[in-house]
Amino acid sequence: MSQIRFALAQIDTCIGDVQANVESVLRYARRAFEAQTQVVVYPEMTLTGYPIEDLALRATFRKTAWEAANTLAQSLRDEGMGDLYVIVGTVGTDHNSDKPRNRMVVLHNGVVWAAYDKHFLPNYGVFDEYRIFSSGDQSVVLDVDGARVGVAICEDIWQDGGPVSALAQQDIDVLVTINGSPYEEGKMHTRVELAAKRAKEVGAPVIYLNQVGGQDDLVFDGGSFVVDADGGMIQRSAMFVESLDYFDLDTQAEQQRVGTVVEPRDPDEEVYAACVLGLKDYMRKNRFTGVCLGLSGGIDSALVAAMAADACGGENVWGISMPSMYSSDGSKDDAADLAERIGAHYDVQPIESLFSSFQDQLSLEGVAAENLQARIRGVIVMAYSNAKGVLALATGNKSELACGYSTIYGDAVGGYAPIKDVFKTRVWQLARWRNKAAAQGVGIGGLNIVGNEGEDKGIALSDGVMIPVNSIEKAPSAELRPGQKDADSLPEYDVLDRVLASYIEHAHGRADLLADGYDERTVDTVMRLVDRAEWKRRQYPLGPKVSSLAFGRDRRLPITSGLRE
Amino acid sequence: MSQIRFALAQIDTCIGDVQANVESVLRYARRAFEAQTQVVVYPEMTLTGYPIEDLALRATFRKTAWEAANTLAQSLRDEGMGDLYVIVGTVGTDHNSDKPRNRMVVLHNGVVWAAYDKHFLPNYGVFDEYRIFSSGDQSVVLDVDGARVGVAICEDIWQDGGPVSALAQQDIDVLVTINGSPYEEGKMHTRVELAAKRAKEVGAPVIYLNQVGGQDDLVFDGGSFVVDADGGMIQRSAMFVESLDYFDLDTQAEQQRVGTVVEPRDPDEEVYAACVLGLKDYMRKNRFTGVCLGLSGGIDSALVAAMAADACGGENVWGISMPSMYSSDGSKDDAADLAERIGAHYDVQPIESLFSSFQDQLSLEGVAAENLQARIRGVIVMAYSNAKGVLALATGNKSELACGYSTIYGDAVGGYAPIKDVFKTRVWQLARWRNKAAAQGVGIGGLNIVGNEGEDKGIALSDGVMIPVNSIEKAPSAELRPGQKDADSLPEYDVLDRVLASYIEHAHGRADLLADGYDERTVDTVMRLVDRAEWKRRQYPLGPKVSSLAFGRDRRLPITSGLRE
Repeated sequence: MSQIRFALAQIDTCIGDVQANVESVLRYARRAFEAQTQVVVYPEMTLTGYPIEDLALRATFRKTAWEAANTLAQSLRDEGMGDLYVIVGTVGTDHNSDKPRNRMVVLHNGVVWAAYDKHFLPNYGVFDEYRIFSSGDQSVVLDVDGARVGVAICEDIWQDGGPVSALAQQDIDVLVTINGSPYEEGKMHTRVELAAKRAKEVGAPVIYLNQVGGQDDLVFDGGSFVVDADGGMIQRSAMFVESLDYFDLDTQAEQQRVGTVVEPRDPDEEVYAACVLGLKDYMRKNRFTGVCLGLSGGIDSALVAAMAADACGGENVWGISMPSMYSSDGSKDDAADLAERIGAHYDVQPIESLFSSFQDQLSLEGVAAENLQARIRGVIVMAYSNAKGVLALATGNKSELACGYSTIYGDAVGGYAPIKDVFKTRVWQLARWRNKAAAQGVGIGGLNIVGNEGEDKGIALSDGVMIPVNSIEKAPSAELRPGQKDADSLPEYDVLDRVLASYIEHAHGRADLLADGYDERTVDTVMRLVDRAEWKRRQYPLGPKVSSLAFGRDRRLPITSGLRE
Repeated sequence: MSQIRFALAQIDTCIGDVQANVESVLRYARRAFEAQTQVVVYPEMTLTGYPIEDLALRATFRKTAWEAANTLAQSLRDEGMGDLYVIVGTVGTDHNSDKPRNRMVVLHNGVVWAAYDKHFLPNYGVFDEYRIFSSGDQSVVLDVDGARVGVAICEDIWQDGGPVSALAQQDIDVLVTINGSPYEEGKMHTRVELAAKRAKEVGAPVIYLNQVGGQDDLVFDGGSFVVDADGGMIQRSAMFVESLDYFDLDTQAEQQRVGTVVEPRDPDEEVYAACVLGLKDYMRKNRFTGVCLGLSGGIDSALVAAMAADACGGENVWGISMPSMYSSDGSKDDAADLAERIGAHYDVQPIESLFSSFQDQLSLEGVAAENLQARIRGVIVMAYSNAKGVLALATGNKSELACGYSTIYGDAVGGYAPIKDVFKTRVWQLARWRNKAAAQGVGIGGLNIVGNEGEDKGIALSDGVMIPVNSIEKAPSAELRPGQKDADSLPEYDVLDRVLASYIEHAHGRADLLADGYDERTVDTVMRLVDRAEWKRRQYPLGPKVSSLAFGRDRRLPITSGLRE
């Protein structure tokens, strides 16, 4: 047979929920089967969810996953889909090693028909696979109705040599790679270039199938695609939504037919959608239906509230204004305005008398007194979270978290921090982008992300403004003492954010930063702030940590350190 | 020459503080040189401290370490010690890899005279070395005045094959291994057995030199030793103190001479000393001179306060009693009694009126109202920390943290949690051990740990009791509602602790636990509590996390998980 139809099942799995993942596989397999598909491809570690971290080490969990693969194969056959080749990821046991494997299994004719184990185990950035898995050492070519299908898992195509090199000698008709590749800005381009290189190496089209959805502090963006043997884009799925697309491989043809190629989104839209999807999936997978947060009238809490409204609807957002003696009238008005625009619950809980009660006993001064205000607010936010069973959101952005410009157990409380990985300059951009989208008619919940596909375009905004312009345009202030401004304590945000990116994300030391062209005073200020903040943050752990990757894990540095460079 | 003197320099390094580490090396080298030593051996990654985690990836830091090794070699020569062979660990750059190396360098005659790179990079439990280092692939034998000295770094001797196998073919006279091996109960025995096996393999004595001191949430116990070619113990240094001991290798002798073999401590003494050293070094390396903590009158805060007094002296401990309407008189008396016995500052800060102020506004009920009490206490503890510049201690034990029997941002606040890795049943044992030691005359600060070597035996206790017997013997209660007892919410601690150990530390799943002989109801209760707590803890990060290793890193599980096994 010269025509093989591949279905690209870009689904949103949940770690540990094997049963739900199996049901999702079945649901998509039925749709693919009805569309005359021969091969359905799912993301990396479909059955277990990804990344499963130390769950991989639990023997009973591996057993559950193995039984699920077999039961799923039987279910497919029982439903008359035994002829399908269903490619899913799971955790596997290897009898020559103490460690499990990151495994791909092919379900066919009611059994686990073939298996392939990932060779290259990433152990950098957000990845810890070498810790929990052992490496496969075989390359695998499947014979699917006469077509030679080579397979690989994620990192296998990022490294030279290994299984792809082996496949290059085996005259394959197509390379299928299943992935759990987290979102980073600009990464789509890198993936496509890489796949194009591998396509040329193996002399065949490459199917790149990626997971979609939020999982803890990672967001997987989907955007699965197919490039032909020359590296040309011939099929691309949407980002941030589940999807089922098709690729018809013609093993006799000189050139493959071009299908639907979804164009990438605007960069601000991409980041905004990633933040909302991360929050939405965090809520759904942890069974939260609502959130609460402090609304200060500032841009950070306004943006987070807007994202929350997009994730779960304004009626499930509890905004709490907690004015003190230092809060300006403008701030209170902006908070109320925002709450009304997004349709959130809005409560005012003044903290002045609570502050006085504490001060009668403690008589604090300076920073201790400033922190007390923030901590009283933290207690109130958590009281709402406990009393209403909603998720408390921390509203800190990456710039202030990196510099420690927040109060531990104060404004930093919260179970999820939607913009912890967004620099302040980007916060303003995202707010402006969201208002622009609102003006163009994208109402609350109207974003195209997982879970919103079938919904209405959301609640329209009366005047096309979602985030009050005041909140975007005024000078940022913590309002913990009279006349306080961020600019009193921090370098200007446009410079600050660039230095932070170099220092945190690219591991530049002092000498590097000076060579980058930043002046000595700025470099020393930023390094001092970040080091001190990192130390304090790890001493007194906050929720949100500073990430070295977009939506990734923070850099890992020791707490106790005499480092003075 | 048939006689070679090795000095075992068991020192306490600080991560990142290259200058202080170099000075410590010099100080010990001078003492060893005066004692006619030829070779001085220091712990793994001496110059950089260990474990350096992602600091290894910073190029400017690697440069600093490289320059320090060269400067140190010159200083040794300049001081007339050029003939010494000084074996130190550091971070090295490899020109064939992007990643740095975990390197041993031998300083001699004013230069870096030889180098060896660690082969096996541990990446399990608390270790992440594969993430940050590349592997060495050479074995190295040093010629030291005619003696053939084989070398290895830590994990190299834990794995079969590799450098030790290579050295077994090279007729060495002694194997020197430098280590950063964290404390775990019973690990000393494992290390000695392992070294004995390697000694027989290479047919020569093995020098095992271990780091000592606290570093973040790890404690290195020292206890360096030498076994002869038959695996017999011929020299052992003390645990938990810096030390300089000697081993005279006679390359001609059939049998090596037995030196000083320090006997191991009592297991409770060992764990207590490890906790105190961890706290003491955390304070010293982070430049804290005092601590504050809430004193409830219960056993956990009493034990932590006693440890703090042993670490920094009672006069640097601020104990805060924060009684509510539910606090018993007994609790208040026990807290005051404890503070007096250890010579701590003692303040009473009632929370009843603060609680009323919040309740006037919030009208909370049930768990939300219980949490409010704990969070008001958290605000007060942090106010002391901010106002006095002291480290806030969290007093939770491993059993309650594992089960989530604590309030996020409430009693869980604190920068360091001295007993986070001690099960409740062990808490009682440690309290009894400390009282027994006090009765035998071990006063406050009288423990033999790093920093206490030269001190007086501490302040004697008037009646030989440090921790009030009441606090040890009464039934544990959180006192957040009338008549509340731990036993209402948790299984009995003797059963609970054993199930927790299996579930958390040995990754037993439900089927395993039932096979272990625990009844279904207990297993399901404990698993539900732990899973829910782990999820809540990671959503709303506390300070202390549950460790899977004694003094180690918690197991890493995803937050968002549909796991129902």
